[in-house]
Amino acid sequence: MAPAYSPVTPAIVQRLEEIVGARNVIFGDAEKLEPYSHDEVADTHYAHLPDAVVRPGTADEIAAVMKLANAERIPVTPRGAGSGLSGGAVPAYGGIVLLTDRLNRILEVDPANLMIVAEPGVVTNEINEVLKPHGLFYAGYPMSLETCYLGGNVAENAGGGKAVKYGVTGRYVVGLEVVTPTGDIVQLGGKRVKDVTGYNLLQLMVGSEGTLGIFTKVTLKLLPLPKASVDLLCLFPTAEAAIGAVPRIMTGSGIIPTAIEFMDKTSVQASCQYLNESMPYQDAGAMLLITVDGADEAQVIRDYDAIGEQCLGAGATEVYVADNANTSERIWKVRRNIAEAFKVISPHQSLEDVVVPIAEIPKVVAGLAEIGAKHDIQIPCYGHAGDGNLHATPVMNPTWTLDQWHERLPGVLTDIYRLVASLGGTISGEHGIGHKRLRYLPLVLEDAQLAMMRAVKLALDPNLILNPGKLVPMPQEA
Amino acid sequence: MAPAYSPVTPAIVQRLEEIVGARNVIFGDAEKLEPYSHDEVADTHYAHLPDAVVRPGTADEIAAVMKLANAERIPVTPRGAGSGLSGGAVPAYGGIVLLTDRLNRILEVDPANLMIVAEPGVVTNEINEVLKPHGLFYAGYPMSLETCYLGGNVAENAGGGKAVKYGVTGRYVVGLEVVTPTGDIVQLGGKRVKDVTGYNLLQLMVGSEGTLGIFTKVTLKLLPLPKASVDLLCLFPTAEAAIGAVPRIMTGSGIIPTAIEFMDKTSVQASCQYLNESMPYQDAGAMLLITVDGADEAQVIRDYDAIGEQCLGAGATEVYVADNANTSERIWKVRRNIAEAFKVISPHQSLEDVVVPIAEIPKVVAGLAEIGAKHDIQIPCYGHAGDGNLHATPVMNPTWTLDQWHERLPGVLTDIYRLVASLGGTISGEHGIGHKRLRYLPLVLEDAQLAMMRAVKLALDPNLILNPGKLVPMPQEA
Repeated sequence: MAPAYSPVTPAIVQRLEEIVGARNVIFGDAEKLEPYSHDEVADTHYAHLPDAVVRPGTADEIAAVMKLANAERIPVTPRGAGSGLSGGAVPAYGGIVLLTDRLNRILEVDPANLMIVAEPGVVTNEINEVLKPHGLFYAGYPMSLETCYLGGNVAENAGGGKAVKYGVTGRYVVGLEVVTPTGDIVQLGGKRVKDVTGYNLLQLMVGSEGTLGIFTKVTLKLLPLPKASVDLLCLFPTAEAAIGAVPRIMTGSGIIPTAIEFMDKTSVQASCQYLNESMPYQDAGAMLLITVDGADEAQVIRDYDAIGEQCLGAGATEVYVADNANTSERIWKVRRNIAEAFKVISPHQSLEDVVVPIAEIPKVVAGLAEIGAKHDIQIPCYGHAGDGNLHATPVMNPTWTLDQWHERLPGVLTDIYRLVASLGGTISGEHGIGHKRLRYLPLVLEDAQLAMMRAVKLALDPNLILNPGKLVPMPQEA
Repeated sequence: MAPAYSPVTPAIVQRLEEIVGARNVIFGDAEKLEPYSHDEVADTHYAHLPDAVVRPGTADEIAAVMKLANAERIPVTPRGAGSGLSGGAVPAYGGIVLLTDRLNRILEVDPANLMIVAEPGVVTNEINEVLKPHGLFYAGYPMSLETCYLGGNVAENAGGGKAVKYGVTGRYVVGLEVVTPTGDIVQLGGKRVKDVTGYNLLQLMVGSEGTLGIFTKVTLKLLPLPKASVDLLCLFPTAEAAIGAVPRIMTGSGIIPTAIEFMDKTSVQASCQYLNESMPYQDAGAMLLITVDGADEAQVIRDYDAIGEQCLGAGATEVYVADNANTSERIWKVRRNIAEAFKVISPHQSLEDVVVPIAEIPKVVAGLAEIGAKHDIQIPCYGHAGDGNLHATPVMNPTWTLDQWHERLPGVLTDIYRLVASLGGTISGEHGIGHKRLRYLPLVLEDAQLAMMRAVKLALDPNLILNPGKLVPMPQEA
């Protein structure tokens, strides 16, 4: 049973128009509303049309929308670029979709404090473009960085390709301006690298998937730009051999590389085909793409030598070094486009995001093969192996009907999730729960923890109007 | 007005004895209870006797104590080593002090996953002793590491001497077993470096000062032990010159050192005298102690050369290199013992912990001099300058009576806190709010944020029995 929400009436639309201006409201036009009914989740089962879309231009306008929605009990779903992979920006209960794309300015570059302040609608990649002349960088590197927004990165606590060394988005978020579900504007944190003044509401907001607040300003901590960087492409005969090398790389060499990405043969071939790229090594059984960066070249060479040794010792057949920006970008582009390529090949698939302790990832690859065989489907696999985070992607057996797929997929997912839970892992490392994984949360979280999450949600959003149906299963959704 | 709590009656004591065993309960003996009435805050004004002290041996026993206390409305104050600096372990409303010192085992060293699992009563220093043979280390380095407990480090989100490069305690906490205020035992996180499964209750617990849960197991992420490390001792003619060099070190050299510690002349002399140490350079106006570490010696030499250049350019008169463990430890021991030395010289002082954006710290030093002059007191200063985190320490004017000191100190603190707030800073970087700074919180946090904190506290501790009077000012305490 859904919570008792009110509909968006023409009278409400008029009040929304008074807040954000008539041209920043979409209502009553299914064709114009449709793009806001889904994110990048392939399965249309998860789509839901909003009643209205609003595009506020300031934090004050967002606060006014929230006050109205809270008073009238209308659900509000914040949305950035819509590049999410768990249905987090989909209005599961209808109501208002609130776009942050007009808040798209970089407000301040502050090299003296190693900080940058930006609005949520800034495209992530733009941040490092702006910082380059200052010799600084922001270490977040989601695979969709050319399209995704900073606000969404914070809402999902995005991981990405550099998390092995640099950690995920949350490590760099030191300040947030947040509009609360009840329409207050709150400043959390600031340009400070240490702060124990009160509860860590800042990191509670990070990864809250737009269910506790809407971010209107983000302050990020920066690092000096590494002066040298090299990518290694290590070919292995099998997926098992490649993934088996991962824990060994760090514990054997004593080096934490910037990235350790895993791609099985299917993934590399799909992406090369999609990009019309002719990567010469796509016939290997699997690859590791390893990045090493540092303050000088000699150090980086020593590091990649040591890591290359570990890979060869673990059964790599070849280790190629990409030491110029052009070659590196070509390889990384293949990696970044795997998800997109799979979607084009088959929209009937489920992009997963499991994570386990790093020493357990060989068992995930073996377990996925068993689960695929049991259910008679392919489960190609790629991802951030250095974090124990793998994007296993069950793909519909082409001999099945769509109904069969939808009937059988929950069983496949349950097997995968139980596998990672049994290995000390969990069901999402970076894509989030959204509404796609909501009903599976009890597989990995105890009742007491779910009750704590509900209590926190109700404490900060008593009318459950901000992005309901996501991340926190309410009793009626369990 | 205090919340309506129940007293610890002999009947309650009997039930506590049934849970933890009679020899693990202290009751009705003021002399034995006294050590648990204060932490390391010098001022006895903040002390408060508990009614009873219990020493549970397991998470189950702690859960049983919490269920009893929650049902009976008796406040419970968790306590580790009692080495805190904000009154966090002091039973402000009496009731039960719950010691975690019997939970003192390192449960698991897991080199394959770069993790360690330990109980809260483990002395922090012990962790790195155990890890050394594995070539790994835990990057937490609070100044009291020889006595403080891991559980307290997590509860306070302890900072310390290596936070410039490695961040604070919270960055390394990936899993917690927590007993909730209502007596549930919950597992948050695990041996995973990425996890977006639900709200980040894990980092909400970190730094919650024992007000949201009692930690019974801590899982820490580890790093490969740096193979080389060097300390630089840089002498400056004045405090202003030394602190002025700090922002320049990082932005000028492009290197993030492990540590940048600041000590003014008074601080160095006090600590040397306390330790009977003859550091040859204690006549300099101020010093920076800078640590650089890395994977090899050549790199470390290049880094410290670049940093030394920056210091000389910023007015340093001498830069000494300490490249052996013995000399390094001697210097760091002087740094670690400043707080203790000040306490011996004058118990009538207030150890502060302000933090500002790093580029603003020269203004803090200048502002502290003005505030000292205005109030006719000395405010010696030292601390983690590379984090913008300074331990300014107002000391009673020896011509004053104790009453005058207590009357005037709030005015001094208010001036200091307003100064850092005006610079984009806050009133505690690592020592915490505890009950010492509770009433000053509204100087740096807006009403809306305080209301959010109260809502979270009430959501997870509806009867306000876990460490009341700390961190979250309730309406009756504001």
